Amino acid sequence: MSKAESENNVEIGLTVKKSQNLSEWYQQVILKSKMADYSPVGGCMIFLPWSFSIWERIREWLDARLRRLGHENAYFPLFIPESLLKRESEHFAGFTPEVAWVQAEGDASEERLAIRPTSETIMYHMYSKWIRSYRDLPLLLNQWNNVVRWEFKSTRLFLRTREFLWQEGHTAHASKEEADTEVRTILGIYQELARDLLALPSLAGLKSEGEKFAGALYTTTFEMLMPDGRALQAGTSHGLGQNFAKAFDIQYLTKEQRKEYVWQTSWGISTRLIGALVMVHGDDRGLVLPPAVAPIQIIIVPIYYSPERSKEVNEYSLKVLQKLNKSFRIKIDDREDKTPGWKYNEWELKGVPLRLEVGPRDIEKQQVIFVRRDTNDKKEKQAVAFQDIEERAESVLGDIQSKLLKKAEDFLKAETRGASSYEEFRRIIEQNAGFVVCSWCGEVECEREISSDTGATVRLIPFEDSAPTAETCFHCNRRATKLAYFARSY
Amino acid sequence: MSKAESENNVEIGLTVKKSQNLSEWYQQVILKSKMADYSPVGGCMIFLPWSFSIWERIREWLDARLRRLGHENAYFPLFIPESLLKRESEHFAGFTPEVAWVQAEGDASEERLAIRPTSETIMYHMYSKWIRSYRDLPLLLNQWNNVVRWEFKSTRLFLRTREFLWQEGHTAHASKEEADTEVRTILGIYQELARDLLALPSLAGLKSEGEKFAGALYTTTFEMLMPDGRALQAGTSHGLGQNFAKAFDIQYLTKEQRKEYVWQTSWGISTRLIGALVMVHGDDRGLVLPPAVAPIQIIIVPIYYSPERSKEVNEYSLKVLQKLNKSFRIKIDDREDKTPGWKYNEWELKGVPLRLEVGPRDIEKQQVIFVRRDTNDKKEKQAVAFQDIEERAESVLGDIQSKLLKKAEDFLKAETRGASSYEEFRRIIEQNAGFVVCSWCGEVECEREISSDTGATVRLIPFEDSAPTAETCFHCNRRATKLAYFARSY
Repeated sequence: MSKAESENNVEIGLTVKKSQNLSEWYQQVILKSKMADYSPVGGCMIFLPWSFSIWERIREWLDARLRRLGHENAYFPLFIPESLLKRESEHFAGFTPEVAWVQAEGDASEERLAIRPTSETIMYHMYSKWIRSYRDLPLLLNQWNNVVRWEFKSTRLFLRTREFLWQEGHTAHASKEEADTEVRTILGIYQELARDLLALPSLAGLKSEGEKFAGALYTTTFEMLMPDGRALQAGTSHGLGQNFAKAFDIQYLTKEQRKEYVWQTSWGISTRLIGALVMVHGDDRGLVLPPAVAPIQIIIVPIYYSPERSKEVNEYSLKVLQKLNKSFRIKIDDREDKTPGWKYNEWELKGVPLRLEVGPRDIEKQQVIFVRRDTNDKKEKQAVAFQDIEERAESVLGDIQSKLLKKAEDFLKAETRGASSYEEFRRIIEQNAGFVVCSWCGEVECEREISSDTGATVRLIPFEDSAPTAETCFHCNRRATKLAYFARSY
Repeated sequence: MSKAESENNVEIGLTVKKSQNLSEWYQQVILKSKMADYSPVGGCMIFLPWSFSIWERIREWLDARLRRLGHENAYFPLFIPESLLKRESEHFAGFTPEVAWVQAEGDASEERLAIRPTSETIMYHMYSKWIRSYRDLPLLLNQWNNVVRWEFKSTRLFLRTREFLWQEGHTAHASKEEADTEVRTILGIYQELARDLLALPSLAGLKSEGEKFAGALYTTTFEMLMPDGRALQAGTSHGLGQNFAKAFDIQYLTKEQRKEYVWQTSWGISTRLIGALVMVHGDDRGLVLPPAVAPIQIIIVPIYYSPERSKEVNEYSLKVLQKLNKSFRIKIDDREDKTPGWKYNEWELKGVPLRLEVGPRDIEKQQVIFVRRDTNDKKEKQAVAFQDIEERAESVLGDIQSKLLKKAEDFLKAETRGASSYEEFRRIIEQNAGFVVCSWCGEVECEREISSDTGATVRLIPFEDSAPTAETCFHCNRRATKLAYFARSY
């Protein structure tokens, strides 16, 4: 390796280990893999193709699932008049501090316009015009858009930015039962998306009263665990009850000609999922992308040895590509100004799941060298006969996908602990050791005390098996009413 | 038809003919077909699924074409600091009056933030950081997003709204030739999209100096003709030269280690195309959607006659559906509270290209009745044997697609006229009669005079055969230098 080249490697490589400084590692891996960059506006970010194409795959997967259940995509305006945002008082109180307001040049209208932090109010204003009869129900709309929440907490690429991309589904139903089913169906789909596409396991449950969505009857959530033991709220699905229906007067005529308020739900996942993907799977060499969402699943690196042999190596590489490009997202890195070693480092940094090395010796043996991204041993290389590469690529990529999930599941399981006393609880939390499951009273005040003392909040109350295992609350000694999963969180 | 039902029909049907009042017809057809609705914020609109899914099809088609040419999708922030927007002075002067500015609640930063009216400035600020060497070129990024231009002209659904959806491509190249090729390649793809997907013919050419994009070296455009003889700018592709490269200092190192400015292009199409689709193809009964973009291509309407036969009719309808739903977007309208006649009217209003009627007699004859949306005669019905329906649906839909295009092409051709004197020109323009082709001097001042006198502007200067046919300008008698297509426009 030449001097210039080793400098190049330093420039693109990570200068910090994941285990040493997760936060610095996280930022470096995102910037250096060219997933994203900072915007000149503080707290905003640029989604480069390497992350945006992951978002497109998430969208495609979810759209197909939602469509099958009868949901349709629409687009509602960015601007919400202040009077609409105020209509549901809890909702307004919850969002106001983070709202960015617009003044149009030379505009005479008196009312300020909010840039949507979420679209309940503008959508439900329309729902009250559109919904007349039971025949108009259920109304199942979804939109993919950008929202703005002017965060004053410190921001972090993907995980907390002032503008982010998400989808927000908003449904209206004739009965509470139907709405409740929708809330849980969607949450299940979200968990499936995370698990099957992103190889990210999660825990699902109810939010506590203190943590539920502003204006909701109840909030369900799915939560992930990051390597530093902090939880990440990966997405939420809200039962809105009739709160917004009453504030926006969304009534329908039943078959029996009675007027009733609709039952509503809203739910969303965001580009934050990409942040979780980076944190959970990445390692000291960079990103590790699950094959199901990797923009490039297989990278072919030709090894020329000598200029004389480069033509035949390129031809063989092309043969390999052609055998695989119907089934896989695959590319040849035939840049002539970079050495194979440089390329290995770059594609490892970018997290491509499988590398194929192709040199003159491999042509002679009619084989291809397979190198997996997910194993820690850089030298674990396997020679695969040319006629077997398609089948082997399929099985290796499948194996990477399931091993990434398995590893994350094991971590989640290992880092979920019970605590029977507040002391034990506090010791675990202070070691940044994941979820702590406790028998809890369910009181807002109790949660507030725990939170201000330890930084941990109730992440979820499980849907099933939520009966407390002790009689009294681990913290306040009131009667315990449920199990709760506590953690510090992003 | 019962009284209630005929009232229902009045409610959903159009109350004005397209030829009587195009503007009122246009608004009614969009609102009543449930393509869109007005937002409570003036000049903003809601894209309902019936139009949004057309936008999704446009996106899918264009993304596939752009990807094949090496373009990648990204996402840049909504907010642009005022100092960046000002960097290229012509650009800033062109957009300032329409910019909406943001003030974040409690934010201490002094600089105002613009909501993007277009993203040149924020993107090129980043390009100057990312582009270092010839190896980084060409840089081919595209994004699909929302932009805001605070129009003070009267707005119109899809055609002119304060927020709209579009894609904006932004490329950087090593040479002017390569950039010029990109500009024209994209314009060609846009015309192909309009023609093949939307059945909309267009004319392409250069914009005059007075009409080019603020900050561009030159602008190319494709223009359509609406039924009232007004032109519609359907999309543009700009050669930016090195104007922005110099303002934003985007330089690269050539192979020979020289520093040079890049050559840039930008280009976009918007949801305005959906407005053109409505205007050009619609008729007095409502929308007429080209099969290639229709959300539903075929609607099956079961005709029950009597409750006893409804089961067998539903079964037969399902058999028809199952034979067709692998190849077509198809649906059965089995609502029990609507008559067939009511359903016919509604699906005609919504522009579904092909209706299949299925009744007890058709079961006996093992046939299906085909009714095309694009013919004016409501009674033109064809009986098709069950075993032939797939093949026939294919050919009928293909025929509808090409006939819609043909009709629009004929109109465009018929409404494009030459004029050799200013009097003749003015007479044609005042009759709202489409494009007028004249030998023109090319002077900004001359165009301004014509525009303030007649409301017509230069829509385009053809790429080929653009030599003037007369020696002097039809208006100012200066030397004619080119042919120009004039029209009043949206």
